Formats: sequence, structure tokens, C-alpha cells
Amino acid sequence: MNFENWTCPLPLQDYPSIVIGHGGGGKLSAELVEHLFLPAFRNSVLENLGDSSVMPALAGRLAFSTDSFVVKPLFFPGGCIGDLAVNGTVNDLAMSGARPLYLSAGFIVEEGFPMSSLAQIVQRMAVAAEKAGVQIVTGDTKVVERGHGDGCYINTAGIGVLADGLRIGPRQAQPGDVVIVSGSIGDHGMAIMSVREGLEFETTIESDCAALNHMVDEMLETSTDIHVLRDPTRGGVASSLNEIAGQSKVGIAIDETKIPVKPEVASACELLGMDPIYVANEGKLLAIVAPHAAEAILARIQANPLGANARIIGTVTANHPGMLVAKTGIGGTRVIAMQIGEQLPRIC
Amino acid sequence: MNFENWTCPLPLQDYPSIVIGHGGGGKLSAELVEHLFLPAFRNSVLENLGDSSVMPALAGRLAFSTDSFVVKPLFFPGGCIGDLAVNGTVNDLAMSGARPLYLSAGFIVEEGFPMSSLAQIVQRMAVAAEKAGVQIVTGDTKVVERGHGDGCYINTAGIGVLADGLRIGPRQAQPGDVVIVSGSIGDHGMAIMSVREGLEFETTIESDCAALNHMVDEMLETSTDIHVLRDPTRGGVASSLNEIAGQSKVGIAIDETKIPVKPEVASACELLGMDPIYVANEGKLLAIVAPHAAEAILARIQANPLGANARIIGTVTANHPGMLVAKTGIGGTRVIAMQIGEQLPRIC
Repeated sequence: MNFENWTCPLPLQDYPSIVIGHGGGGKLSAELVEHLFLPAFRNSVLENLGDSSVMPALAGRLAFSTDSFVVKPLFFPGGCIGDLAVNGTVNDLAMSGARPLYLSAGFIVEEGFPMSSLAQIVQRMAVAAEKAGVQIVTGDTKVVERGHGDGCYINTAGIGVLADGLRIGPRQAQPGDVVIVSGSIGDHGMAIMSVREGLEFETTIESDCAALNHMVDEMLETSTDIHVLRDPTRGGVASSLNEIAGQSKVGIAIDETKIPVKPEVASACELLGMDPIYVANEGKLLAIVAPHAAEAILARIQANPLGANARIIGTVTANHPGMLVAKTGIGGTRVIAMQIGEQLPRIC
Repeated sequence: MNFENWTCPLPLQDYPSIVIGHGGGGKLSAELVEHLFLPAFRNSVLENLGDSSVMPALAGRLAFSTDSFVVKPLFFPGGCIGDLAVNGTVNDLAMSGARPLYLSAGFIVEEGFPMSSLAQIVQRMAVAAEKAGVQIVTGDTKVVERGHGDGCYINTAGIGVLADGLRIGPRQAQPGDVVIVSGSIGDHGMAIMSVREGLEFETTIESDCAALNHMVDEMLETSTDIHVLRDPTRGGVASSLNEIAGQSKVGIAIDETKIPVKPEVASACELLGMDPIYVANEGKLLAIVAPHAAEAILARIQANPLGANARIIGTVTANHPGMLVAKTGIGGTRVIAMQIGEQLPRIC
């Protein structure tokens, strides 16, 4: 279903914006489901409309993940809260090596929110789900009074299935392993910030928001010697690698000059006094892999359009366990600490 | 873990209330997980702290459900948003006949929200999860600025497993079936409303908030001739039975005089001009069962403390498909329509 020129079918057209009753579990709620969510997400599981959705038995371990999305603004260059909500949870599942299958979607919408904006968000979710090959099978809508909430918050939870034998996780990094990043960093966070701060550059900074599960499938086809996968969202590459170093009790040493950063992202970071290594990504992954498999995995990532700029950026060491250190551009070494709080609030 | 006399362990005590950084994915987020969520929800899956949680393979079909909770006030007689968030999703799963196993928990917390209140909510979730026999295995916290959100919103999603052969669902009601309600109706909605409106009665109205999955297990032990199960939350018994009548393409006839309503709930409803049949419940179920099994199932429900006041309240008919009609106290018959919007906003 294409919502680009979406006009509200009867009887939603009586409501150009969300009213409290759309979250009431009555007729208006049912109409929202029937005329907006069902046509967009249409699949046989969702159509049953029970209190919970029933899916066939899955062979293999289950992966389960959830994220709430409160990004501000709701629409930004390269995406909106809708595709973010789908891709975020798909990526969390993929980072455990799981094949994402089913998503839930919980909306908390503010009274007065334009129906056409909700329709756009829902359409973007549907497109993102289709691209990622997942089904949105269950959902819920609550409405809060005007002035509470910020238009629309979305929670997604996701179920994936995990092949036997895979043991990918934040405690699996080993000294000697190689650290790969799948492309330029900081795009998502700076896309959001440049809209918020009204920054203008020659090139618009676009979010990298994308589902990475197909890339992970390809990587696993190439080699199962993948120890850790992580999508560096909030807190960026710095926080992700710090967490992994802590949980795996290893040191990680990266070469900052190897990390791809787009010129416009670098400019925006400089202007706002930020370090791209702490800035969120929504379509990039970090892979920590066995050294013998690194080149093959890197090549396979680069063959995927989402990974064209992938690079090897560092190694795992037995030295300085729990710490992330970086070789800087001027030949020195610095410790990259985990950020304390939030550098960029509300970026996802 | 008992949070009744909870004092914040280091280093959370430096933050008597939530700051933006607690949602930032950095050190403060990690501390919240480590010092608040993990001790409360402790289980082996959650402790892995990966992007997604990995659980063993499940034998049987999966049930999957989600709900967001925006109840106002957050604490009310008989419960709080925490146990509501657990029981709500547990019940949605149980209403498909599934055995609930795993929950996710997504928090959207407002900056400035007292850490002790969050701890209380989390503790109530832990207690509710233990009672229901489910594990909270994955979660997420986002923080929104002061003035956005209302203290705390919670989304839960849940996974259950469904025994072979069960076909319980809103389309399965058949003419001749018997309608059972598991106890007095309207308690939850009126507990919330009486706090909000400052109503005082001789007896405090308490929410019936409870997990019904064990009751459903017992019912299924007694008979599998259960066609529909539904927890009449938003929109109450009226909306639930209307939906079932519509989806099963049958009529439903109930005897209003048979429906248990507590005197204090009846008084509050009268005072506020509400009909208890439209008021939300959070610890009651409607069961539509084959006539030959009705008495045995009723007896089994009544043997459970949560179902002591269960009653047979009506039958399914081939007449007036899609409609719910009620025999009234004065011998007449009235059509009970689905409510249009929301009679009681923000009750879950």
C-alpha cells in the first residue's frame, strides 16, 4: 500500500487528527486498526486480531529484543521514527546472529497528532519491515492528552531465530580478533542534530537508518568465526567498544585514522564540538572476528551496498582489559572512555 | 529483592531522580541496568546483556503480544503501572490459550522522575512476573525531557507457547455456547477513576489487576472445549463481547442481573454516570465455552481465589449476529453497543 498520496478512507476522514478515543479500545480504536494498521502491515497473523498473535513453531533458539523510540524530530533526512523503530529492533536481533522474523509495534500517540503524519510513519514502518523481511504481527495504540508525549512514541519488540552452534555475543571477543566497522560513522546522530540546530551544509546529512540483517546473513555465510556484532547506536562506536571490552575482559585498540567519517559529518561535529566516535549510527555494525576470517568477511560486507565503506579499524588485545584506546592522527595514543550521560539526547 | 525500604545503592544514589543521561546508552544507562533492573528482574537470560536476549528453542506454536501502559495516576489502590504492565501482557497471551514465558520491558521515563518511584514500579513488576511465572528477559530505557511524558510509560511485549490442538480465538464462538465472567466487573476502571475524581466511599475500590494465566491453565486442564477467552480491559465487557460477536458472526445474549458488580463499584459508577459493563477490568476474563463443559469450567474457575465470584452470564445465539443484547433488571431487552471512543481515558 502506498501512502505517499494517502487520503484517509472512510471513516478515518472524520478525524484529521488523533483524538483520545483512538486509544480507547472502542470503535475508534478498531477503525484505526482496520483502516490504517491492517492495510499497511497486512499479513495473515495480524489479520486474526486476537489479543495475541499466534505463529508457527520455530526451530532453533529464540532471540528477543525491544526498543522504544522517542526521536525528535519525528521526520529527519533519511528516515523517520517509523523506519527507525523497525530497523532498530531488527538490528538488535541481527546482532545476536538471529534471523529476525516478527515484530510488535506499540504506539503512544498525542491527542491532536495529524492522522496523515501517523499514516506516513506507519507506511515507512511497512516499507522497512518488507525490506528487512519481517512481519509486524501484533500492536497496540494508546493516546495521551495534548501536551503530553511528543506527537508519537513507538516501541517495537522483535523475535528472531538463532541457528544452532552460533555463539555471537558481547563476551566473545578474544585477543587477536580484528575489529571491523561497516561504514562511515556518526551519520544518524548528526542528521538529527543538524535538523535540530538548523545547520546547513552543501550536502544534507542523511541518517544511515537501515536494516542490517541481510548483511549479517551474508557475513555468516562467509564465516561463522564472528565473535561479536554490535550496532553502535546511542553512545556511538566509543560506547559500544567500551562495553564489549568490559564484558569480554579484553582491551581494544583502534586506529582513529582508519574510521570512515563523511566530510559533512566531520564538519557538523566540529561545529557542535562533538566527536563522531560518540555519535549514534542506525545502519552500521561493528564486527569483531577471528583474524584469519577478517579479510573475507570485510570483502563480503563491502559487497553489500550498505557496507561499501567498511574498514578494519582495530584489534583486540590482552593488554589493558576493559579499556578502549585509540591511535590518534598525530601518532599518539588516547584512552576513549565510555560517555557518562547523553551527548545527543533523543536521537532514537 | 525487596524494594519496600529501598535505598539506592551506589552509584545511583548520586541521582535521586532520573536525568536525561539515564537514557543515553552511556555509563548512566548502564548503571541503571546494573543497579536497578538487573537486581529486580535477575535471571540468566537478562544477565547476558546482549542487544537481544537468547532463549532455548520452544516446542509449539508461539503467541506474541504487546501493550503500552500510560495509566494515570501511576500508583492506585490495588496496583501500579508496573504490575499492570506485566499482568496486561501476560493476560493477553493467556487469552489465546498460550503459556506466557518471556516479557520485554521498555520504559519511557520523564526527566526528574524520582528514582525511588521507578524502583517501586520495577519491584512491583518483578513481583508480578514471579507470580505469573514469567521472566523479564530484555528491556530498554529512554528518557524524555521534563514536561514531556507523564513520569513513566511502560511497554511490555510477551512471548508464550501454545499447546498443539488448541484453537481459542475471537472467531470461535458458536451458537449454544455459554458465556462466563470470572468475577465482579468494573473494579479496575473505578479504582482509577475514584482516585482521579477524589471519590471516597466506605470501602476503597481496589483494582483487580492480576495475572490470569494460572486460572487459564486450570480451565484447560478441566476442558479444552473453550472457544474464546478475553480479558475485558479497555471498553469493558461490553466492548469485548461486541468484538467477539462481530468476529464470530454470532449474537450474544447476556442477563445483566447475573453480572457481579461490587456495591462500591456500582455506587461510583452511578455517581459518575457510568455503566460498569463499559468499565475496564485487569484481572477478569470472559470465557465462551461449549455448553456441556460450562458447569465444570465454572466450578474450576470458582476454585481459584481470583475467580471466586465467577458466574454464567449469557449464551451465544444464532440470532442477531454481530450484536450483544442484554436482559435488563426490569425484564426488558436492550442492545449494548460498542462504545465509540473512550469513556475512561488513561486507565491502562
